[in-house]
Amino acid sequence: MLLNQARAWQRMEQDGLAALVATAPENVTYTSGYWAMSQWIRRGPQAYALYPAPGRGGPCIVASTGALDLVADQDPWVKEVRRYGFFVVETDPGAVLEPRDRRLQELCQAPDDGDAVGALVRAIRDRGLEGARIAVDEIGILPAYLERLRQALPTTTCVPGWDVFRHVRAVKTAEEVERLRGAAQIAERAIAAALAVAREGATERELALAFNETTVREGALPVLGCIGTGPRSALPNCQPTDRKLQRGDVIRFDVGGRFRHYRADIARNAVLGEPGAKVARYHRALCAGLERAWEVMRPGAKTADVYQAVMETVRREGLPHYRRNHVGHGIGLDGYDVPNLTPESREVLEEGMVLSVETPYYELGFAGLQVEDTVRVTRDGVESLMSTTTALRVV
Amino acid sequence: MLLNQARAWQRMEQDGLAALVATAPENVTYTSGYWAMSQWIRRGPQAYALYPAPGRGGPCIVASTGALDLVADQDPWVKEVRRYGFFVVETDPGAVLEPRDRRLQELCQAPDDGDAVGALVRAIRDRGLEGARIAVDEIGILPAYLERLRQALPTTTCVPGWDVFRHVRAVKTAEEVERLRGAAQIAERAIAAALAVAREGATERELALAFNETTVREGALPVLGCIGTGPRSALPNCQPTDRKLQRGDVIRFDVGGRFRHYRADIARNAVLGEPGAKVARYHRALCAGLERAWEVMRPGAKTADVYQAVMETVRREGLPHYRRNHVGHGIGLDGYDVPNLTPESREVLEEGMVLSVETPYYELGFAGLQVEDTVRVTRDGVESLMSTTTALRVV
Repeated sequence: MLLNQARAWQRMEQDGLAALVATAPENVTYTSGYWAMSQWIRRGPQAYALYPAPGRGGPCIVASTGALDLVADQDPWVKEVRRYGFFVVETDPGAVLEPRDRRLQELCQAPDDGDAVGALVRAIRDRGLEGARIAVDEIGILPAYLERLRQALPTTTCVPGWDVFRHVRAVKTAEEVERLRGAAQIAERAIAAALAVAREGATERELALAFNETTVREGALPVLGCIGTGPRSALPNCQPTDRKLQRGDVIRFDVGGRFRHYRADIARNAVLGEPGAKVARYHRALCAGLERAWEVMRPGAKTADVYQAVMETVRREGLPHYRRNHVGHGIGLDGYDVPNLTPESREVLEEGMVLSVETPYYELGFAGLQVEDTVRVTRDGVESLMSTTTALRVV
Repeated sequence: MLLNQARAWQRMEQDGLAALVATAPENVTYTSGYWAMSQWIRRGPQAYALYPAPGRGGPCIVASTGALDLVADQDPWVKEVRRYGFFVVETDPGAVLEPRDRRLQELCQAPDDGDAVGALVRAIRDRGLEGARIAVDEIGILPAYLERLRQALPTTTCVPGWDVFRHVRAVKTAEEVERLRGAAQIAERAIAAALAVAREGATERELALAFNETTVREGALPVLGCIGTGPRSALPNCQPTDRKLQRGDVIRFDVGGRFRHYRADIARNAVLGEPGAKVARYHRALCAGLERAWEVMRPGAKTADVYQAVMETVRREGLPHYRRNHVGHGIGLDGYDVPNLTPESREVLEEGMVLSVETPYYELGFAGLQVEDTVRVTRDGVESLMSTTTALRVV
C-alpha cells in the first residue's frame, strides 16, 4: 500500500477530521491505489478517493464510468467504487469472462451518480459524514465542483486538504521507497547512457535522446530532462538543443522520470576532457555540501539546520560566495514533496522521509554544476537510494 | 504564434473583457509562447500570461525567478516579464556573455514582486485595468491565490476564464496545425514500430516499449499509451501488461504523445493472423463511420449532426447495436479541446478546428476495435493530418 495509514489517522485526529477527500491525481493514487489515467494526463477529468477516519466507514473511489476498466484491471485495495457518467462497454454473451472482465461488468452495473460531485456527495452521505469536518484536497477538484459540493453538503465543514495530504505523504511506506529507489536508479542508468554518446560534436539533443530511450526501456516515462552543455549548463532549467559538445565543456544533468507513478530528481556532472581547476574546485565544494548533509540528517534534525550546515560547508570548501534558496526537498508522487531544506523551514526530519538533496550552482559565462542524491531518513541517519557517486565524470 | 489573436479579440469584445489571464500550463504557453516547465510537470508552480484587449496595454508574462532562464532561452513573442521570488544565477565577470545570458541577467535584475499574485496584480495595475472585467483562467491558479487576487483588486470583476481560453483555442493557427500534424504522424510511426515487433509470444509491454522508443526518438514524449491485445483490447484505457500475443488476437492502439507541447490521440487496430468474420465486419463498420464524418464535416456543420451521421452509419454498416457517448473531440495543447462530437453538443464546426474523430467499440470477452484520425476543418470539408489509413492491419 502506498498510503501511510497511521500518519493519516494521526493527522485526522489532530485536526479533528472525519475524512479526507483526495482529488489531485497524486492524492487519489496515493490514497486508494487507483491510477485514473485521464486525470494524470489532462487537467479537468475528475476522480476522487474518500478516506474516512477509523470508525467512520470504509474508503471509496469515485470514478467516471469510462475509467472503471482501470479499477478492474488494477484491483486497488479500496474496493468500494461509486461511478458517474454514460459510457458503454458491451459483453460477448457467448464468452467465458475473465475475473477482471466480470469485475468491470459489476462496476458498470452500479447506479450512475450523474457526475463526480453527485458520486462524492453520496459516498459522504452513505457514511453519515454530512455534519462532520472533512479535508477536501482543493487542487484536483474543479473550482465550480467544489462550490457545488459545499452547496450540496451545507452542514459539512470542508477545509482545504492539499497540505494535509502533503503532510501525510512526507513519510514514505516501504512500497513507496522501493518505487523511489527504482526511479532514481533508472535516472542514473539513463545518465550513463547519455554519457556513453558524449563526444566532441554530439548535441544536447543526442544526449537527451539516449537518456529518454533508456528511461522508457527501463519502464519509466521522461519528465524532468534538463541537460545542458558548456555555457548552457548554467541555465537552471536547460532544455536540450542542437548545440554541439566541445572539448572542456561541462555537462549538467538535472533529470528524472516517473516510475510506477513515482518521480526521480537527481543531478550529476561530467566534463568532456580534463576539468579545469575552477570546475574541479567548485564541484568538490558542492559534493562536500552533500556529504555534510548525510552527517547531519537524522530524525529530529531541523530542516533549517540541515540547510545551514550544507551552505556553510559549500562556502568553506571552495565556493565562498555560494547563495541558494534551498538545498533539497521531499520527493514522491510529486517532484517536490514535504519537507523543504530552506532557511525558513520549520520542519523536522522524521524516519521514512525521502528527500532529493542538492547543491546546484549556476554561473553565466562559465557553467552550471549540480549534484543531487535521493536519500531516505533512517532511524539514525540516512540511507542512499542511489547506485552511483556524485563524482565528476570525465568522458 | 500559437495564439489565435483575432479569435481572442473577438471573444473579449463579445464578453466585454478588458483582458485574459492564463494560469494553466496549456493557456500560458498558448497565450505567450512561454513554456514554464515546472507548471507542466507539477501541480502548484505558478506562471501566468496577461493578455489585454486591443488598446488596453501590451501582454505580460509572470514567471518565477528560477524559471526566467526558460524565458531567455525560448525568447517568446511576449517580451514584458514580471518576476517573483529569490533565486540566484551568478555571472562570470570575465566572460563575454551570449545574448541569451545577457537577457537572463536583465530579467533577473527587474524588481522582485514577491510572489505570483503580487506580480500579476502589478501587471494589471500597470495597465490601468483595475476597474475592468477580466477573465482569469481558474484551473492553473491556486485557489488561495485566486482569493488573494480578488482581495487585492476589489474593483476588478474577475470571471472564470478556462472556458474562454477553450473557445479561443478551438480554431488553430498554422503553427498549431503543423505541430498537431507532427504529433499525429509520430504516433503513426510509433504504431508501425510496435507492430514490427508483434508476433506470437510478444507482450503488450514489448509493443509499448517499441512504441515509446519511437516516440522519444522522434522528439515527442509518451503520454497516452493504451495498447491492449486479445480480450484485454476491450478495456477502454488498457495499460500494457506481460500478456503474450496469441494467434488471432486483436491489437488495439489508442495512443499519442506530446510533440512541441501538442498532443496526439489516434487509434488503429491490427490482428495477428487473419481476422475473423466478426472482427472484419465490425471494423469495417467503424471505418465507415469515420468516412461518413469526412463527408459531413465542414464549416457550419452542427457537431450533434456529425455525431448522428457517424452513429447511423456504423449501425447500418455492420454494428447495429452500436452505442457511444461521443465520436470525437478537438485536440491541441490539451488532449480534449473544443468542440465535442456528442448528441448534446450545441457547437458548430469552424474552419481551422482540429478534431480527433473516433468510433471505438469495446466488447468484453471479444475485443476492442477503434479507429481514430485527426483532421482539420477546411473551407469546405476536412483535411486529414494522418499519413496512414484506418485499415485493419494483418501482422
